[in-house]
Amino acid sequence: MDLTAKTGTTEKTATTTSVLESFAHTSDPRLREVLASLTRHLHDFVRDIEPTQAEWERAIDFLTATGHMCDDTRQEFILLSDVLGVSMLVETINDHKAAAATDSTVLGPFHMTESPVRELGANIDLVGGGEPCVISGRVVSVDGTPLPGATLDVWQADDQGFYDVQQPEKQPPGNGRGLFTADAEGRFWFRSCVPSPYPIPTDGPVGSLLEATGRHPYRPAHVHFIVGAEGYSPVTTHIFVAGSDYLESDAVFAVKESLVEEFVEVDSPEEAAELGLANPFRRARFDIVLQPVIA
Amino acid sequence: MDLTAKTGTTEKTATTTSVLESFAHTSDPRLREVLASLTRHLHDFVRDIEPTQAEWERAIDFLTATGHMCDDTRQEFILLSDVLGVSMLVETINDHKAAAATDSTVLGPFHMTESPVRELGANIDLVGGGEPCVISGRVVSVDGTPLPGATLDVWQADDQGFYDVQQPEKQPPGNGRGLFTADAEGRFWFRSCVPSPYPIPTDGPVGSLLEATGRHPYRPAHVHFIVGAEGYSPVTTHIFVAGSDYLESDAVFAVKESLVEEFVEVDSPEEAAELGLANPFRRARFDIVLQPVIA
Repeated sequence: MDLTAKTGTTEKTATTTSVLESFAHTSDPRLREVLASLTRHLHDFVRDIEPTQAEWERAIDFLTATGHMCDDTRQEFILLSDVLGVSMLVETINDHKAAAATDSTVLGPFHMTESPVRELGANIDLVGGGEPCVISGRVVSVDGTPLPGATLDVWQADDQGFYDVQQPEKQPPGNGRGLFTADAEGRFWFRSCVPSPYPIPTDGPVGSLLEATGRHPYRPAHVHFIVGAEGYSPVTTHIFVAGSDYLESDAVFAVKESLVEEFVEVDSPEEAAELGLANPFRRARFDIVLQPVIA
Repeated sequence: MDLTAKTGTTEKTATTTSVLESFAHTSDPRLREVLASLTRHLHDFVRDIEPTQAEWERAIDFLTATGHMCDDTRQEFILLSDVLGVSMLVETINDHKAAAATDSTVLGPFHMTESPVRELGANIDLVGGGEPCVISGRVVSVDGTPLPGATLDVWQADDQGFYDVQQPEKQPPGNGRGLFTADAEGRFWFRSCVPSPYPIPTDGPVGSLLEATGRHPYRPAHVHFIVGAEGYSPVTTHIFVAGSDYLESDAVFAVKESLVEEFVEVDSPEEAAELGLANPFRRARFDIVLQPVIA
């Protein structure tokens, strides 16, 4: 008598068939399509790895702990999506832009508070202490036409690698954030400190996953932008600091070569005084190129 | 100029390659295998459905809400696994038993408190009001040998379809639960009420999913068992009440024909008096068949 006979393929696909049938009457056709695909791929995954009951329980516990880690200032499921490359894949799939337009990249988990409206030229580094910099450029159309009145939502970590929401006791709300409006020639400029590479938060389940897999949690230094103008497709992107560590091994797979910009060191007491920055400082100049909405 | 050019296949698989490489140095070979498979199947799913950013955000919100629904008495991720057929699939994959042994089925989300130790014959219906029943049988080996001292962990919903942990204000802890030890001939028996079909909890994200897909949330009436004996593989299973509604459309896909048992109506004042039950009552008789642990 064979006591260890493996369950047959028929039994293992019967459940899949039943689940697919259970979703067959979903009235929303898109939801029906998504759930049918989810069922097929999820069941394929389970049949592929053949988890033990204990492994299945670990997966349930991992997802539960991930959910419990989420609150108003922490989004562990976005982090999980990020470190599994899903956020970047979704981003790539939705990137239908013209070659000339600025590349997009992931939103990330820290765009959770509204950026304060600021005047062009404002310093978004409300704390000080980091290496000062000035970031400037133009928002233009793919044919080079300036886009006056374009909006730029900017957010970045400080020189120690932390966002305001991560250090409410140390950073005032809105530190490193600003909502700017480009001038009549589409120009923008603001002051800040050079951002630092930083680890994504590692004190939750995603951090445990990275540790168990020998992956470092660091992201290369970057400034986030969401840029929009009437009649144009908005772009969600980062500008990465050239020369930063981890450009080749971003923990969330979000680096695109086209988004790496030089933060050039400027040693000019006159210019520094004019800008209201300490000397020396760094300067980054780049344009954001938007494409018209397809009618 | 083609402004709507779709992102190429190369870009869409590049992220997958990067993620697979990032997990390549995981020291635990099983974890490495699971994460590689997860990455491939999850990315295949995403490429298959091509979610918009808004759809991706809805998925993040759904998982977050599912996590927030979990606490000491509610496990929404198990419910999600159940209604997607994953729990039953994992159960089927791990069912390496001999044909003669009792079939297993899913654990379900309500085995979260320890069942109180009870004497054989005890009534696990501490509230009363339902249709009384007596459940009896033997725990035996695949060759028919009785298994004295076998343990039976039993839990069930009441006649209104609720478990004790769902109604702490109405049901005393341990209502519908009992941990029994079979006698010297492997026999067990206890009293209860006939369980009712019931909806899985619908006030969370899983309930919203069922509603959006036109699926009912009901499970056919059943009693849960985990039965073990020294030297034998334990079985986690249900006994379903023959004739119950929803046997053909269990919301969690857990019905196996071999687990459906008659709860026969008995009209005998003498027997009822002897059992300490109201007349008429119902009687279910079945054996639990375990197989030896493979050395």
